[in-house]
Amino acid sequence: MSLAVTDALLEGEKVGLRCEDGLIAAIGPEVEPVPGDETIDAGGGPLVAPLINGHCHAAMTLFRGSGGDLPLMPWLEELIWPIEARLDDEDVYWGARLACAEMIRTGTTRFWDMYWRPEATARAVVDAGIRATVGAPLFDHDGDAAQMRRSALDSLPALSDLHPRISPSLAPHAIYTVSEDSLRWIAALGAERGIPIQIHLSETAQEVEECLAAHDMRPATYLDSLGLLNERSLLAHGVWLDPEEMALVSERDATVVTNPVANMKLAVGGIFPHPVARAVGVAVGLGTDGAGSNDSLDLLSDLKTFALVQKHAAADPTAIDAAEAWAVATGDRAPLLGAGRPLSVGADADFLLLAPVSAELGIGDLTAGLVYAASGSIVDTTVVAGRVLMRGGVIPEMEEIVARAAERARRLGL
Amino acid sequence: MSLAVTDALLEGEKVGLRCEDGLIAAIGPEVEPVPGDETIDAGGGPLVAPLINGHCHAAMTLFRGSGGDLPLMPWLEELIWPIEARLDDEDVYWGARLACAEMIRTGTTRFWDMYWRPEATARAVVDAGIRATVGAPLFDHDGDAAQMRRSALDSLPALSDLHPRISPSLAPHAIYTVSEDSLRWIAALGAERGIPIQIHLSETAQEVEECLAAHDMRPATYLDSLGLLNERSLLAHGVWLDPEEMALVSERDATVVTNPVANMKLAVGGIFPHPVARAVGVAVGLGTDGAGSNDSLDLLSDLKTFALVQKHAAADPTAIDAAEAWAVATGDRAPLLGAGRPLSVGADADFLLLAPVSAELGIGDLTAGLVYAASGSIVDTTVVAGRVLMRGGVIPEMEEIVARAAERARRLGL
Repeated sequence: MSLAVTDALLEGEKVGLRCEDGLIAAIGPEVEPVPGDETIDAGGGPLVAPLINGHCHAAMTLFRGSGGDLPLMPWLEELIWPIEARLDDEDVYWGARLACAEMIRTGTTRFWDMYWRPEATARAVVDAGIRATVGAPLFDHDGDAAQMRRSALDSLPALSDLHPRISPSLAPHAIYTVSEDSLRWIAALGAERGIPIQIHLSETAQEVEECLAAHDMRPATYLDSLGLLNERSLLAHGVWLDPEEMALVSERDATVVTNPVANMKLAVGGIFPHPVARAVGVAVGLGTDGAGSNDSLDLLSDLKTFALVQKHAAADPTAIDAAEAWAVATGDRAPLLGAGRPLSVGADADFLLLAPVSAELGIGDLTAGLVYAASGSIVDTTVVAGRVLMRGGVIPEMEEIVARAAERARRLGL
Repeated sequence: MSLAVTDALLEGEKVGLRCEDGLIAAIGPEVEPVPGDETIDAGGGPLVAPLINGHCHAAMTLFRGSGGDLPLMPWLEELIWPIEARLDDEDVYWGARLACAEMIRTGTTRFWDMYWRPEATARAVVDAGIRATVGAPLFDHDGDAAQMRRSALDSLPALSDLHPRISPSLAPHAIYTVSEDSLRWIAALGAERGIPIQIHLSETAQEVEECLAAHDMRPATYLDSLGLLNERSLLAHGVWLDPEEMALVSERDATVVTNPVANMKLAVGGIFPHPVARAVGVAVGLGTDGAGSNDSLDLLSDLKTFALVQKHAAADPTAIDAAEAWAVATGDRAPLLGAGRPLSVGADADFLLLAPVSAELGIGDLTAGLVYAASGSIVDTTVVAGRVLMRGGVIPEMEEIVARAAERARRLGL
């Protein structure tokens, strides 16, 4: 199976591209299709690296538009958790298929997911054609640590063996929902298997206060004391990390994924201190969080919000520029996220073709246009592993996916 | 000329709609096309009121992606003003056509514009098929008040007589760029002709400090002292209005248009105090500002940012809900903006049909989906004065408009 792209624009130059066996076989001004290639004419549209969504709860598309405009804890306790207790595999599968469809539509081809029934999410990702690092959220604040550990041990081989586009992970929900003993157990298991660990960290000021009260340490320091802060750690949020914690996160080579839209929607009150993270060399990625608390999975839109809130928080329009925001959203500032070296020979054949004609692009710098002017609808074609998942803005299965997901949401009373 | 829409969804109910002579002639579950109607099948997609962009500099699409990531004054003084000195009518016309195309694409059918060569902008609006209140920015800080006044007096009749979809206005740039004497002259002219006055007000903290230093009054109080605060006044920004000024603005029935994206992009440091405005009953609208400082004109995206920053600033997710944000963006909270009573018999036949199938909508509350999940690309069909300007996301002249605008930008060295 081979794919060729003609007449694409890469850094201002007209190029061709060829994919073989899911990898980029050739890219450059002289590259032409060979007989047998499926061929796409980009029509002069830009060829760009895809985005990576570093923090998501994909199946939560089912909860979209049902949050009212509630605070975090009532939203979780009154709305989300009671319904989550009733979710089955088909709910999670179709919720995640809808999430994947939205991500494909808007240029995200890889994401990090933390949700119940992770095998169902992983199956949805495989069927959708994109990539994900998937983990079940581990909780034991209700006391059943043994059950939680069994469930984690069960899901790991299923996730590891499912498909090359799926990576397993461990996903302790947060330091306030998983006991110290279980966090140590997770750290040891992660180290033994060499797999990443995703955790919500320092999302609210309350979490920091409670951590200080319980452990006399701030959250990152506490994680470190448990062996959970290392190059396999993905910390979602990090809103309240102080400069000392940020230096520690950098020293341990852990990754922070900022979710500016979800943080503002739930009004956690702070903004991830990106200038501090950058100054000490912390690896940073960008995430949407779940559709329940965003409610969009269009990372190309959230990318703008990321840049805007950083400028606003610093009261300085130069606090972050378009190139840096773009680098964060494509995973270029956080190797753990898995972007590799996109658009190069031998890399995964994952890429986007943008609309050749649009109101948003065509004047001024392309990266500035992508960050500040465009939304995800600028993506015309999405290719993953050399397979065309969307062409001309159309995902063939969209109608069925939307209908099936809506049916599952209705079943749950959403 | 008559137009009929079938199978649209209005507040959960299947309806039809008919337009005659630019007005809505009938709307409801029983309404069917009559012979001779141009007919659109909405395919079950939602019918919604269009958005109103309360503050724009349309032709500044030419400056898109060329701001670097600069602070306000260097951006204006080093980049914008020198190029603006060289703009001709064709530049402004094609820049504004591009702006109109983006607004049609993303569901805005009426905007308030303040820019050089307003007749060229107005011509672009007429040709594009939408509506605008247009005014030239009046400056006399370089000393030439006589020239400024002549120019204002010249453009008023041209704008008044051009077309029913164009309304004239006066647009003094700001209190720091127009002399006290000229502001009084503008107030008198506006009162005599009964036309609206648009002005940037309280955008930066520096403006407030300088106003206090020069006049011993804060900006809104200063405006009021000149006769410029009344039911015809549109104040763009209002970031730094204090509670006393807000009460005064409410008492005078003036309108404030908040531009959250531009404020964050230029990092003015504050956020429009919407909860205060609401508490004292100030009329509030939403704007994108010019594409040079946003850089998008997709008000349906900015609508989300508006809600997010209000939640963030209040550290309270209930600070604004989706219904209120939607009302602000459609002009329902500020009669001056001109929305009237949309989607009712006798109203202007201006409306949107949304995509019947999309990843973003279809689960949960429609308004929540529009505010938090969708971008402007959710708009499938845009109708103004009973004329279909976009269908299936396609604006027929888009390719020519983008090419011509890009050519004008290149001519200017952008």
